[in-house]
Amino acid sequence: MSDQQVVRPAPISGFPEWTPEIRLVELHWLDRIRRTFERYGFCSVETPSVEALDVLLAKGETSQEVYTLRRLQADDSADEARLGLHFDLTVPTARYVAQHFNDLVFPFKRYQIQRVWRGERPQEGRFREFTQCDIDVINVDSVPLHFDAELPRIVHEILTGLELPGWTLNINNRKVLQGFYEGLGIGDPLAVIRIADKIDKVGPAGVQRMLADDLGLSTEQITACLELAQVRGTDSSVIKDITRLGAKSDLLTEGLDELAFVLDSLSDLPTGSVVADLSVARGLDYYTGTVYECKFTDWPDYGSICAGGRYENLAGSFIRRSLPGIGLSIGLTRIFAKLVAEGLIQPGPSSPSDVLVVVPSDERRQAAVATAARLRERGLNTELYHQADKIGKQIRYASRKGIPFVWFPPFEEGGPHEVKDMASGEQTAADPTSWHRP
Amino acid sequence: MSDQQVVRPAPISGFPEWTPEIRLVELHWLDRIRRTFERYGFCSVETPSVEALDVLLAKGETSQEVYTLRRLQADDSADEARLGLHFDLTVPTARYVAQHFNDLVFPFKRYQIQRVWRGERPQEGRFREFTQCDIDVINVDSVPLHFDAELPRIVHEILTGLELPGWTLNINNRKVLQGFYEGLGIGDPLAVIRIADKIDKVGPAGVQRMLADDLGLSTEQITACLELAQVRGTDSSVIKDITRLGAKSDLLTEGLDELAFVLDSLSDLPTGSVVADLSVARGLDYYTGTVYECKFTDWPDYGSICAGGRYENLAGSFIRRSLPGIGLSIGLTRIFAKLVAEGLIQPGPSSPSDVLVVVPSDERRQAAVATAARLRERGLNTELYHQADKIGKQIRYASRKGIPFVWFPPFEEGGPHEVKDMASGEQTAADPTSWHRP
Repeated sequence: MSDQQVVRPAPISGFPEWTPEIRLVELHWLDRIRRTFERYGFCSVETPSVEALDVLLAKGETSQEVYTLRRLQADDSADEARLGLHFDLTVPTARYVAQHFNDLVFPFKRYQIQRVWRGERPQEGRFREFTQCDIDVINVDSVPLHFDAELPRIVHEILTGLELPGWTLNINNRKVLQGFYEGLGIGDPLAVIRIADKIDKVGPAGVQRMLADDLGLSTEQITACLELAQVRGTDSSVIKDITRLGAKSDLLTEGLDELAFVLDSLSDLPTGSVVADLSVARGLDYYTGTVYECKFTDWPDYGSICAGGRYENLAGSFIRRSLPGIGLSIGLTRIFAKLVAEGLIQPGPSSPSDVLVVVPSDERRQAAVATAARLRERGLNTELYHQADKIGKQIRYASRKGIPFVWFPPFEEGGPHEVKDMASGEQTAADPTSWHRP
Repeated sequence: MSDQQVVRPAPISGFPEWTPEIRLVELHWLDRIRRTFERYGFCSVETPSVEALDVLLAKGETSQEVYTLRRLQADDSADEARLGLHFDLTVPTARYVAQHFNDLVFPFKRYQIQRVWRGERPQEGRFREFTQCDIDVINVDSVPLHFDAELPRIVHEILTGLELPGWTLNINNRKVLQGFYEGLGIGDPLAVIRIADKIDKVGPAGVQRMLADDLGLSTEQITACLELAQVRGTDSSVIKDITRLGAKSDLLTEGLDELAFVLDSLSDLPTGSVVADLSVARGLDYYTGTVYECKFTDWPDYGSICAGGRYENLAGSFIRRSLPGIGLSIGLTRIFAKLVAEGLIQPGPSSPSDVLVVVPSDERRQAAVATAARLRERGLNTELYHQADKIGKQIRYASRKGIPFVWFPPFEEGGPHEVKDMASGEQTAADPTSWHRP
């Protein structure tokens, strides 16, 4: 062992890392998410982690904290600072679709599971490096309403499969909000949306005050806005609750038709899992129709665990084509890290192995090697113990790694194979060419 | 469409990106690599993309071009510059094992498939962001020789499965080289290894000159060194070819025993795929035993496509424990990008779908939705066409995306289901609750 200086490694705040038994659970989550995306026919896309700063900032200075790259041994030449790590998967997707426009089949249906980076001050639920699982549809000129219902169905299937603690996928429609405010005679409906988006933080009283002080709305207008924000419902009967409030406009009618279509299309899902919630505004300016937001029931202040919506012109910074889209993003790291912190992830085995094959002795090593090869050929994840050693020690190794079966190849030429079920302790004769994991 | 300014996106040199049909092939490669690692019982580890610069540079200034991170809106405070993107997966693994030492089961067998970054000038086969697939075993105090044979077996299985054009996995042992040079009475055998490593670049004559000029070796010593570098063989008969050269030392004997064990253990693999090549030196100082290097037969100058070896003390910078290891790294992006450039990746479908379900009309939409749901429940990746449209247009969409089957739900209540095989053009009656993809 060298006597060199030791740099004691410590976790870096905001950059999560898991031990193998937790990582194995995360990997199962990632597999399930990907499999569901593919079950609906979405293709995989990956983009570089890095984009030109021009691209990241194409919509003007972003509110996100971008990490830029610099070579350690760089001189101070200007072109070094022109690359940054992507802070979401939406900007890279817009750039990707514009750049590969002629090579894609539209409607372009893709999923993208990648890490993103934000130079934020870390706090609960905020990471500086985290994985997002995005699914988007982008089309030329218009995106069929079909997808406004298909995307939440896919995400519902995923979140249900992950067996998360209580959550609700809330749905709203920006045309309903904007059309409703227009119908009240409000001149700048987007300003109302931006204020309404703050209701979680400042409460109804805060919103009321801002609508009066900042926008100068009348008491009647404010009352109607707050009444709208209180509308919630599990099916398209909410439409009546909204029309009952009296505002009228063509945009409102269009939005209500869209919202009704989405809710009717999802009516077979368990009641209460997908809910129309007219308080959901999603402050981002680029949303123009359906919007989604999903939160944990028990931790409403933790913020959204998946979110998205419809946008009319996302790639307009990169190509002179009208490319509207709709997308939903699952905040994998946000969700997973919360459940780890709450002790709700049960750490299982630290090995993907089905079987550990014992090496009885150096003389019988070849028999053990051959047995492991047979089991692997049959699709079983199989570890071969790494040396001849006491049998008890080999069994203990399997136990510590959570390997469910220990296999004993013949201890002498022509002897029997046996397999031990580590859960029951039962040990029985078995044939490596036909054994199946029970 | 807005009239905002358009930033024309262009590829960034050194950061590869694939269209969906190429990405789908890459994804199949990644799945196969991971599956094989797991088939041998290795667990998954991921580390953050980012490490403290102290960690990245723990062994002194690295020869790799490290990218450091900086927040776009950062002030010039000193602590901003202390993070960098990892340039390989070996340093992060050493740090991970040291940091989580008490939570791991040893021998610690893990695989790690992640992107790494190097701020190099891009050229053929060199990328600034690329994916590596590493497999390592780390243990306390000593690593069984078993793994020196198991790792190349795993990589052999992977490369064979990927159906790469011709390649050879070359094996050598640093103890053989060092022990041989010691046996010749050379005082600084590591200096010879460093020079011998350059044989691909400068040729035997160049090595001969450097051994004479830089190290002052005698003609006999140089001749023996060059003879050793010419030894190649597909089985342990190479041991005789080496002992015949006359050098003797305890270290040489130890190295030859190890080399013979590895070659004998792999003797069931197809002849010529794994070859003992005594010219392989792997210049990195940290290798101490078995070393591996794999190249394309037809493109020897392209450099190694996977490489690795045994190291006695990798984590010594981070923990006061002796933690030797052995590892092999597959340069996924290097390999894949080369085959793409050579036109050897056949772009297949751009969709993971088995089936496209046609929407015959708005009235029959629910029948189409229900049919797609049945097929998905049965594990088939199924796209539902996004709107009622001309049937020919829907079939053309499937054709353009390479979807192999088009499903026609009943065009009227109670009618038959039919499925069209896009390859043969044949259309037959089918039942969505029992149909299997042929």
